[in-house]
Amino acid sequence: MSTRREFISNTGKAMFAGGLVTLAENGDPRMIENKFIHHVYFWLKNADSKEDRAKLLEGLHKLSAVKTIKNFHIGQPADTNRDVIERGYVFSWFCLFENGTDQASYQVDPIHLKFVEDYSHLWSKVIVYDSVDAK
Amino acid sequence: MSTRREFISNTGKAMFAGGLVTLAENGDPRMIENKFIHHVYFWLKNADSKEDRAKLLEGLHKLSAVKTIKNFHIGQPADTNRDVIERGYVFSWFCLFENGTDQASYQVDPIHLKFVEDYSHLWSKVIVYDSVDAK
Repeated sequence: MSTRREFISNTGKAMFAGGLVTLAENGDPRMIENKFIHHVYFWLKNADSKEDRAKLLEGLHKLSAVKTIKNFHIGQPADTNRDVIERGYVFSWFCLFENGTDQASYQVDPIHLKFVEDYSHLWSKVIVYDSVDAK
Repeated sequence: MSTRREFISNTGKAMFAGGLVTLAENGDPRMIENKFIHHVYFWLKNADSKEDRAKLLEGLHKLSAVKTIKNFHIGQPADTNRDVIERGYVFSWFCLFENGTDQASYQVDPIHLKFVEDYSHLWSKVIVYDSVDAK
């Protein structure tokens, strides 16, 4: 099994080097693979309240203590501005997990539950995009 | 200047270790900082066309050749399913850039322009979220 996996992996790389892109694997070390990406965008109820914004930011920093999170980013809209760009959210919350099991564990982690309890009154809308490798 | 930066950095870490979260910096090595995140979600015109899906996937693999991209992920919706989760898109396209300048360069990169030229007829909707460190 291990040998077969190695074979597939090497084939993928060889094909990429040869100019053909294999869809399963393009052999690029910059590609994030076999991970679970959880990206959340928050809208504030009181969009102009500096206090509410600061509170939610504090909450996200606390939330980052969840152990199953591999990497995270706490973001705000960049200054780019085109029709297709959504800029209405106040914070983006990016989490990289090793797999779906770790993400499921995060959902019920006491730190996450406490975050929802303490800070959810601040937001009016949340959109979540959970994604795994495209096949 | 360098000394001042070190001071701020050490202060941030000390405060975090002491249980206080500083908003500017929480001292966690898992935190992605000073980067530009570009996350795009694509909806297909022909949502049920396997051919169109495969074409767009091929296009995203080609697009990943843009040199200013530091890391990327080509995703599809995970099997998580809650009210707040958006699952209608066919592919997510995550790019991490060193900074906004690299992202701007990507927008006009010939590889990106060719991607739009060759594949944009396939999608019905695109939503882009560009985010930088929340301050």
